[in-house]
Amino acid sequence: MKFETETERTGSQERSVLRRRGGASPDASRTTDHVAEERPVALVFNGISHAVMMVTPRELEAFALGFALTEGLVGKAADVFDIELREHPRSFEVALTIAQEDFMQLKQQRRSMAGRSGCGVCGVESLELLDLQPSPIEAPVLHDADALPPAIARAAAELGGHQQLMRATGGVHAAAWCDANGAVLRVCEDVGRHNALDKLIGHLAQEGVDMRRGFVFMSSRASYELVRKVARMHIPMLATISAPSTLAIDIAAEAGVKLVSFCRQDGCVEYT
Amino acid sequence: MKFETETERTGSQERSVLRRRGGASPDASRTTDHVAEERPVALVFNGISHAVMMVTPRELEAFALGFALTEGLVGKAADVFDIELREHPRSFEVALTIAQEDFMQLKQQRRSMAGRSGCGVCGVESLELLDLQPSPIEAPVLHDADALPPAIARAAAELGGHQQLMRATGGVHAAAWCDANGAVLRVCEDVGRHNALDKLIGHLAQEGVDMRRGFVFMSSRASYELVRKVARMHIPMLATISAPSTLAIDIAAEAGVKLVSFCRQDGCVEYT
Repeated sequence: MKFETETERTGSQERSVLRRRGGASPDASRTTDHVAEERPVALVFNGISHAVMMVTPRELEAFALGFALTEGLVGKAADVFDIELREHPRSFEVALTIAQEDFMQLKQQRRSMAGRSGCGVCGVESLELLDLQPSPIEAPVLHDADALPPAIARAAAELGGHQQLMRATGGVHAAAWCDANGAVLRVCEDVGRHNALDKLIGHLAQEGVDMRRGFVFMSSRASYELVRKVARMHIPMLATISAPSTLAIDIAAEAGVKLVSFCRQDGCVEYT
Repeated sequence: MKFETETERTGSQERSVLRRRGGASPDASRTTDHVAEERPVALVFNGISHAVMMVTPRELEAFALGFALTEGLVGKAADVFDIELREHPRSFEVALTIAQEDFMQLKQQRRSMAGRSGCGVCGVESLELLDLQPSPIEAPVLHDADALPPAIARAAAELGGHQQLMRATGGVHAAAWCDANGAVLRVCEDVGRHNALDKLIGHLAQEGVDMRRGFVFMSSRASYELVRKVARMHIPMLATISAPSTLAIDIAAEAGVKLVSFCRQDGCVEYT
């Protein structure tokens, strides 16, 4: 499957702003700023609207494929037969055609849940539905102890050069795919860190990359949902620039995902 | 109504970590770190579980009250009769007793929606359910042009001193309530920026603060859901340290909320 519209959109818009400077000689100037786009994107599976996410509208096919995989809606990329992007005046719709078996399971899952949530974790409305016990990943150990810091240092050094949308807007997260040595091979950006990760995983899956042989490096903090998505893809390590939460550490430990945070060129902190 | 457990918990836990330093003399030391807590919190309205949020577990009664208000589940704080916090081994439950009229509306709303969402914006599963046209706020203008930059500068100067959990953990956002002059009057912290805002609004509502006479200052970027929550409380201005998204700007403009981002002691950028 080829992603049709991958490179069409920038993910930012120009807006007129008033830039104010304070201090000794205050002034205000009208100018234009590049602002990161945030648009509602409905994900529709075999004709049924399943979720609306706020997403930076570029690489939306990769996003949809990644979401389907990391949320466990399909078992493998080949179970997504078609992805069609439709633009509406203020929103987007991504229509996926998935394997009948996956769709039956999705319908079953939806039927078994009464009502809906007003707001929450992936639409989860009661604690019983929350998945806090991930299966252990199946992946070889990526680094011995000595090989880890240089790989983190390299990824930390390289990431900035790939954050084009961040440079333009100052308002997006990056998810990077790195080989075991920390070489940054691909970067996706989005206003939402979990969206950036889903875009990245969508691309990797579409290209048939073996995700057990590299790691994900995120510009954000490490939260529950990032670890859960990484674990589902059997990615052996998640490295983040900012801090982890307790639940991220716990879920990573249970899944056997190595979690490394506060990643800088001169050091990092290992949590699992 | 008094919040019972407000000051009991710190919102962080100590974890054993391996701190690695790279560079010319690499070393690794085992030490303990303070990590921001992230725990599932189920919000239960009159016995019905409505949503599960990932929250830093402190000020959970304020969080629940704020959530009920900013998501429009109750019309005013007085419609929440009771808030009871229950701790489970790995999660929390906050049981709210709300006015019968609000509860009937909530039940009606839940009934009218088929199925549920796998993940998304406040559990929204189709574009039709998304509220992108907020009502205009009812609040007087807070600042003339000259009064704005000093207020932002003061808030930016004061915020850091209130971010206790951030200092300890490096991994949380802050939502601050400021008077028109930018004096920081109250700060709430959380791993989620929208949770920090809900906690803040819960406190303000419980104390009967007139929210039309001050502004919210956030350590985060400005996204759709923050603007929508602020607009619902008729707060006249949202100021953020990081960048806004296009949808945040659009929604703020429609609601008549002033949006100011990249707020620093020496300047800021006005978007509406």
